[in-house]
Amino acid sequence: MKDIIVVYHEKPTLNTPVLVEGLPGVGNVGKLAAEHLISQLKAKKFASIYSKHFPPQVLIGDDGVVRLVSNDLYYHKSESGPDIIILSGDYQGISQEGQYEISYEILDIFENFGGSQIFTLGGWSVGKLITAPRVLGATTSLEMVEKLKAAGVGFSKDGPAGGIVGAAGLLLGLGQLRKIEAACLMGETSGYFSDPKSAQCVLEILEKLIGFKIDFSELEQHSKEIDELTASLNDLKPPTGKPDELRYIG
Amino acid sequence: MKDIIVVYHEKPTLNTPVLVEGLPGVGNVGKLAAEHLISQLKAKKFASIYSKHFPPQVLIGDDGVVRLVSNDLYYHKSESGPDIIILSGDYQGISQEGQYEISYEILDIFENFGGSQIFTLGGWSVGKLITAPRVLGATTSLEMVEKLKAAGVGFSKDGPAGGIVGAAGLLLGLGQLRKIEAACLMGETSGYFSDPKSAQCVLEILEKLIGFKIDFSELEQHSKEIDELTASLNDLKPPTGKPDELRYIG
Amino acid sequence: MKDIIVVYHEKPTLNTPVLVEGLPGVGNVGKLAAEHLISQLKAKKFASIYSKHFPPQVLIGDDGVVRLVSNDLYYHKSESGPDIIILSGDYQGISQEGQYEISYEILDIFENFGGSQIFTLGGWSVGKLITAPRVLGATTSLEMVEKLKAAGVGFSKDGPAGGIVGAAGLLLGLGQLRKIEAACLMGETSGYFSDPKSAQCVLEILEKLIGFKIDFSELEQHSKEIDELTASLNDLKPPTGKPDELRYIG
Amino acid sequence: MKDIIVVYHEKPTLNTPVLVEGLPGVGNVGKLAAEHLISQLKAKKFASIYSKHFPPQVLIGDDGVVRLVSNDLYYHKSESGPDIIILSGDYQGISQEGQYEISYEILDIFENFGGSQIFTLGGWSVGKLITAPRVLGATTSLEMVEKLKAAGVGFSKDGPAGGIVGAAGLLLGLGQLRKIEAACLMGETSGYFSDPKSAQCVLEILEKLIGFKIDFSELEQHSKEIDELTASLNDLKPPTGKPDELRYIG
Repeated sequence: MKDIIVVYHEKPTLNTPVLVEGLPGVGNVGKLAAEHLISQLKAKKFASIYSKHFPPQVLIGDDGVVRLVSNDLYYHKSESGPDIIILSGDYQGISQEGQYEISYEILDIFENFGGSQIFTLGGWSVGKLITAPRVLGATTSLEMVEKLKAAGVGFSKDGPAGGIVGAAGLLLGLGQLRKIEAACLMGETSGYFSDPKSAQCVLEILEKLIGFKIDFSELEQHSKEIDELTASLNDLKPPTGKPDELRYIG
Repeated sequence: MKDIIVVYHEKPTLNTPVLVEGLPGVGNVGKLAAEHLISQLKAKKFASIYSKHFPPQVLIGDDGVVRLVSNDLYYHKSESGPDIIILSGDYQGISQEGQYEISYEILDIFENFGGSQIFTLGGWSVGKLITAPRVLGATTSLEMVEKLKAAGVGFSKDGPAGGIVGAAGLLLGLGQLRKIEAACLMGETSGYFSDPKSAQCVLEILEKLIGFKIDFSELEQHSKEIDELTASLNDLKPPTGKPDELRYIG
Repeated sequence: MKDIIVVYHEKPTLNTPVLVEGLPGVGNVGKLAAEHLISQLKAKKFASIYSKHFPPQVLIGDDGVVRLVSNDLYYHKSESGPDIIILSGDYQGISQEGQYEISYEILDIFENFGGSQIFTLGGWSVGKLITAPRVLGATTSLEMVEKLKAAGVGFSKDGPAGGIVGAAGLLLGLGQLRKIEAACLMGETSGYFSDPKSAQCVLEILEKLIGFKIDFSELEQHSKEIDELTASLNDLKPPTGKPDELRYIG
Repeated sequence: MKDIIVVYHEKPTLNTPVLVEGLPGVGNVGKLAAEHLISQLKAKKFASIYSKHFPPQVLIGDDGVVRLVSNDLYYHKSESGPDIIILSGDYQGISQEGQYEISYEILDIFENFGGSQIFTLGGWSVGKLITAPRVLGATTSLEMVEKLKAAGVGFSKDGPAGGIVGAAGLLLGLGQLRKIEAACLMGETSGYFSDPKSAQCVLEILEKLIGFKIDFSELEQHSKEIDELTASLNDLKPPTGKPDELRYIG
């Protein structure tokens, strides 16, 4: 068995596409953002990536039909901005070696489609509830830093200590070795739950950077529900409750 | 050393055989079912699969002679229904990569024998004692879903959360990529012990699906013994015992 | 880097040699026995096996000079019995895959020297102090079972549950696939400490099976020291001490 | 993806260079020493080593630009002594197999540059604060032992039990197989914190062995700060405090 199996459902012709990555991670920010983008742009799945570096598992659909866990690539052909490839999926590679191999393979695919620029999306856990999450950045070049700053991205020295781990980091690091321009957008998040507000903030920055236009009412609705839930939980707390002291574990 | 070593004891000619898999897992349902089927059909071992993805271990027989841990393939030539290949064994692959490689190899072997349809057998832990276990299903196609429903298999949205892990899932997921029709039959089980009743329920469904006919008195005897043991344990419990609240861990 | 590097210090011509394996394990019985045999037969190291499946470690000699951890092969040319290859070393392979690869490689080497018969040595933990350890066996054929019984080896159904794990088992299991005659000799041991008495019992059986003659005074001296130490520890115990209930963990 | 990717920024011509290794480890002694040497010799980075055996991680610089974690090679062309290659980096290989592969690759590179002699630097944890750390040695030959003794290196039988683990050990062990002369210099350290004093002691020995001359005021300044911090902590202790009994864990 090959370590990674790529199945193409279609081979679209794309014009120097931008890659947007959003896989499971802190606060599920990246995956929520990528899935919202896929849904809003009606992006089409064109390739599925299977690998022994993912768990040995099938997921069962509501209709009783299974599918092997995967990472998937979607495309959106744009008239105003560049074409977009979106990467989402069920899992990141489990082992560190697997993480490297999968990111490397994705870069191979991306370069075959003439790709030139990558945005990886993720969450940055700040360990407390955030009403207005900032979006922090990290890039492969100083030019990209300036471009991101102009779009409202923050660069903080007290930012992600230890750097960025996983696909969101490796696509930058391995991309850099191939001279691919890449940036990571990290939405601040408590990290306590799946965070649609942080995902929205990240996508609003991405809108400016890539030049698409999407509707956010669905994410806003989810955020509202979570805010209400959080508020009702706060009401239950004794007055001495210090939510700021809660720390994210994991 | 090759990652997987297949030793053929015989190379039977088989007519579009069906593969039935039953390896160790939850409630040992799959393995119990497969071994009962092998015994009842007097199926003949024709291939042994050894791998460094299994534990580095030999088992000692009562006669003092060892054998290396393995997965094994048996065949049964049928006059009424299709020929059957049965897969059982000592272990599943230990690492996730090993799980993938072994399932992939088994599919290779199966396709070489002209195989077309797969049934994987397993248990679904419900965390409490069950008097009449249902058999739940998952398949690679909607057509198979209908076929299974007609045979009495249940499809439950509150079924196996997280999907199916291990060989019972991978043979479906990797089979699907090869356009092999496949289904998993999961017998409900407490998961507290090796469960012959659940194994029997699974085999009764399989009888209808494949079209063989076997005797169940041996499994029924085992079930009876376990029922008696369980009853005597219940007698020891104080009246407030709430077995329904027991949860299966692992 | 190759997974396994074999460095030959010499390439002896050997006459259908017997392989005797003794690596670290339960009660260190196998390694103690192999090292005593090497010392008594003045066997000569002719090959060193290095591997990334061993720990990434050098050991420092008393003279300050290091050596990379290894498994090593020694030979003894015999006039009365068959030539002997002895395998000992610092570690067994760490991962299960590594265990398989190293045992497989050793069988390759052994077959290149025309080897025909293998004895692996180990301890069988019984969880209590033993004054007269029995030697239990497991083999690759019924003929070997008879040969071992004649030499005083016991075959017990309540013997090593779960079989034999590690090189002592794999050389049998993988050897069996190559039609190499092989047997494992397991000396009963408490498993609490390195056990020279059990090692001696194993070697006394091996003497009869292979047909060499060695001196045991050194092992006997070690056993005596341990007996004295154990006795003095027992003197410290309150009369209710029940050493028989101590169980070996690990 | 190749297991190890070497990117050359430059291919210097070097005259039978000496390799000095200092990677993260006990008391961070090796890495502190290597980085101080790089800084003082103004050594130039000429190669970066990336690998799936390192964590899947990028580090973010203060300017917001990332770099993939790596090991790096620097060179210094000398007029008085031999040319020097210095190896430092963010991590050692995570898995044991990775440790072997990376050290093996570094030896390949080193031999391609005509390298002949290796010094690996590390800390030896003694579990208590040390005012005058000794430097202990281990080598690949008795000649090297004598050379090191002459330079003031100690050789202690009660030294590093279990030998030397990681790159500092493997470059010796794997180097020995290639007949490369190599030695490890281990500075005594409490192991409680990053230890510049121990790093300085190691470098002072290395000065004599290789024949360069560097300034230590920076390391001395760091040591002073740590001494002051330690003293102030001691002042806080009750008089019965027994720092000697503190043991290093890990």
